[in-house]
Amino acid sequence: MDGLLSDLEVIRKDFPILGRTVANDLPLVYLDSANTSQKPQVVIDAMVDHLENHNANIARAMHTLGAESTEAFEAARDKVAAFLNAPSRDEVIFTKNATEALNLVARTFPLGPGDRVVITEMEHHSNIVPWQLACERSGASLSWFGLTDDGQLDLSNIDSLLVPGVKVVALTWVSNMLGTINPVAEIARRAHEIGAVVVLDASQAAPQLPVDVQAVGADFVAFTGHKVVGPTGIGVLWGRTEALDALPPFLGGGEMIATVSMEKSTWAPIPHKFEAGTPPIVEAVGLGAAVEYLSHVGLDRIHAHEQAITRYLLDGLASVGGVSVLGPLDASLRGGAVSFELAGVHPHDVAQLLDSRGIAVRAGHHCAKPAHKRFGVQSTTRASSYLYTTPAEIDALIDGLEYTKSYFKVS
Amino acid sequence: MDGLLSDLEVIRKDFPILGRTVANDLPLVYLDSANTSQKPQVVIDAMVDHLENHNANIARAMHTLGAESTEAFEAARDKVAAFLNAPSRDEVIFTKNATEALNLVARTFPLGPGDRVVITEMEHHSNIVPWQLACERSGASLSWFGLTDDGQLDLSNIDSLLVPGVKVVALTWVSNMLGTINPVAEIARRAHEIGAVVVLDASQAAPQLPVDVQAVGADFVAFTGHKVVGPTGIGVLWGRTEALDALPPFLGGGEMIATVSMEKSTWAPIPHKFEAGTPPIVEAVGLGAAVEYLSHVGLDRIHAHEQAITRYLLDGLASVGGVSVLGPLDASLRGGAVSFELAGVHPHDVAQLLDSRGIAVRAGHHCAKPAHKRFGVQSTTRASSYLYTTPAEIDALIDGLEYTKSYFKVS
Repeated sequence: MDGLLSDLEVIRKDFPILGRTVANDLPLVYLDSANTSQKPQVVIDAMVDHLENHNANIARAMHTLGAESTEAFEAARDKVAAFLNAPSRDEVIFTKNATEALNLVARTFPLGPGDRVVITEMEHHSNIVPWQLACERSGASLSWFGLTDDGQLDLSNIDSLLVPGVKVVALTWVSNMLGTINPVAEIARRAHEIGAVVVLDASQAAPQLPVDVQAVGADFVAFTGHKVVGPTGIGVLWGRTEALDALPPFLGGGEMIATVSMEKSTWAPIPHKFEAGTPPIVEAVGLGAAVEYLSHVGLDRIHAHEQAITRYLLDGLASVGGVSVLGPLDASLRGGAVSFELAGVHPHDVAQLLDSRGIAVRAGHHCAKPAHKRFGVQSTTRASSYLYTTPAEIDALIDGLEYTKSYFKVS
Repeated sequence: MDGLLSDLEVIRKDFPILGRTVANDLPLVYLDSANTSQKPQVVIDAMVDHLENHNANIARAMHTLGAESTEAFEAARDKVAAFLNAPSRDEVIFTKNATEALNLVARTFPLGPGDRVVITEMEHHSNIVPWQLACERSGASLSWFGLTDDGQLDLSNIDSLLVPGVKVVALTWVSNMLGTINPVAEIARRAHEIGAVVVLDASQAAPQLPVDVQAVGADFVAFTGHKVVGPTGIGVLWGRTEALDALPPFLGGGEMIATVSMEKSTWAPIPHKFEAGTPPIVEAVGLGAAVEYLSHVGLDRIHAHEQAITRYLLDGLASVGGVSVLGPLDASLRGGAVSFELAGVHPHDVAQLLDSRGIAVRAGHHCAKPAHKRFGVQSTTRASSYLYTTPAEIDALIDGLEYTKSYFKVS
C-alpha cells in the first residue's frame, strides 16, 4: 500500500499498550487516536527518569536538581519551537491543554462593542465556547463560516464575512469530526488583509502533518500534548512575539511577574508572562520527548501514512452497505478521523459491539455538536488512526461493522 | 527525638531520588520541599501503569480502555475528596496547579465597584496578583492584614478590616516564606459573619497537616499536586457546592457544556463545569496515589514529624552566630519552611555553597515579595523539610552554614 510507514511494525513495538489484550483476550485495536494518542516507551521513560532522578521546581531553584530540572524543562521548549518552526523559543507558552491555550487568547484579546469574531461551524467546542463567552463579556458579535455538503468550509461568502471590524478569525486546521483539512494559510492571508488576528486550533493537525507556524502565517496556534504521543496535563500556545506582547496577562501568580507589591504588580516578558505558577514540568519533559519522536519518524511520512490508512478505511467503509461517511470522501483532503453513521444502528451500539471485539472507536458528538447538527445527526461513530495503525486493524473494523449489521439484523 | 516518624528510614526508601548523589558524589540533602516535594515509587508506578496499560481519554470514550481510564480518573477524585473530608466528590475540581485554582475563583467571582477583597501581607504572589487583577477589572478595592514582628497575622485591626462590603477574604493557611500557621478557622468564622466568602490557599498546608474542609469552614480551598508528593500539572480547587454553583464558568470547551449551538451554550453541573478540555488524567492518577500514600503514613504523624524537624532546625540555626530567622521561633506555630538570613552573606551565595556540599535549599523572594519587604529584606535562604527529612540532614545544613561563614570569613 503506497504511503504506509515502511517501519510500521518497529514503530508499533515502541508503544507498550499496543501489546495488551482487551475483552475476551482479544488484541487491542485502538482506533481512537483523535481522542488521545498512545505513548511510546521513550516518552514514558523520559518522564520516569525525570521523576526518579531530576525532580525539582524550575527557575526558582538554584541547586543541582533545580538546574537539571530547569534545563530539562527549557530544552522541551526548544524542542517544541523546533517542531513548530517557531522563529523564537520565547513564543512557546506551555498551558494545560489546547483548551486553555484557546481560552487564554479569547479571555485576554481586547474586544469591544461593534467588534466581530469569525469562527466556523466545524469547530470543536473549545474553539466555540471561549469566543461566545468573549463576545458576551465584550459586546462583540460572533459569525461563522458554514459548511458545504461534503464537509468543507463554505468560502462562498468570505467577502461578506471577512470585513473591516473583524478582529479575530479563529478556526481549526483539521476537523476532529469531519476530518477536513482547511485552507488555513489562504484564510490567514485574507484575514490579515482586513487586520484581523488569526487563531488556529492545531489539535488535530499537529499530530499528523508538518505544522510550520511561519509558513501558515497565523498569529496564534494551539495544540495539546496528549494527541502528539505526549502526556496529558500540557498544551501549547504559540504566538507571534508582537501578538503575545499585545495581550495582558491571563493567570496571575508566581513566575509571571517582574515585581509585586501589595498595591501593584508588573509583568515578566514572554513566555513567563503567561506561565503563572509551577508549570507542567514532567509533562514538558514528556512532550519534548514526544515531538522529538514524531520528528524522528518524520511528519511528512506520518502524514502519508495517515492518508494511506484513511484511504483504505474510506474504501472499506464504502464496501459496507448502509454506512454514510461525514466529511470529504477524498482522503487527500482530510486527516485520519472518519465519522460515520451505520443505518439502523445507534452509534453507541456500534461502539459497544466493536468494543466486544477489542476495537476502540468513539461514539457521540465528539465535542462538535454544531457540525453534527449541520448534517442533521445527533451523534456518529468515529474511527481515527495514527502512525501505529495497520491495514489489518482497518480490516478488523470493517469485519466488526459487518458483524454489527448481522447482530442488529440490518442490511 | 519526640515526634519523628518511627519508620523514617523505610519511608525514605520509598523515594528513589533520595538515593542519588549530587556534586562531588555527595549524598543529596533535599531541603526544598516547600518548593516541590519528591515522589514515592508508588506514585511513579501508578502513572507508568496508567500510561502503559490503560491510557485513553475519559468520559467521551466508551470502549474498554476509555472505561478503565475514566474509572482511574474518577477514583482519584474520590481519593482527593476523602483526603479533604469533602462532603461531596463533585466539589473537587481538578485544575493545573494551585495558581489556576485561585485564579479560577478570582476571575469568576462577581465583584463590582464598592466591593472589597481582603488578603494578607504574607500571601504567595498567586494569592495576591489574581485579586489585584480582579479589583482592577471590577472596580473593587483591595485591603490586607499586616504582619506582626514575629511573622504572624496582625489581627489587631480585624474589626476595621472585616466590615460589610467585604465580599472575599483570601489567605494562606500556612505561609510558604514565614512558615506561620494561620488561625484560618477563626478568620473564616469572622468573615462569614459579614457575609464574605473565604478562599484558603492550602498549598503549604495540604502536604503537612490534616486539611478538613468541613472543620475549617472555608468556602474554597486550593492546593497543588506536586507539593503533596504527586506530579506537576495538577492542582485542586475544592469548593462548597453552593459556592461553586454560584460562579459562572471559567474556561470554555469540551466536557464543561450541557449543549452547544453556534448561538449559545449551557453548562454541565460541577465538577465538569470547571473542567474544560481533556483534564490532567495521568496526573490525577498520580495525585490519587500520592494522597493515599500520605494518608497511609498519616497526616497527624507527618505534622508531628515536621514540627520535630523544624524545632531541631530552629535550634540548629540559633546555634549558628549571625543567623536571623523570619517568622515564629516557636515550632508549634509553624510549618516546615524556615527562611533566614546569614549576616554578611548573600542568600544566593549561601545556597550555592550549600549546593556544593549536596544540600538543596532555595534562595530568593520565594514568590512572596511583600512579606520580604515587610521585614526589610530583598531575599532569604529557605530550608524546608518534609516527611522524609532526617535530623542528620539538618546537621548537614548547620555544618554547611558554619562552612559558609568560614568561607566568606564572617563571624
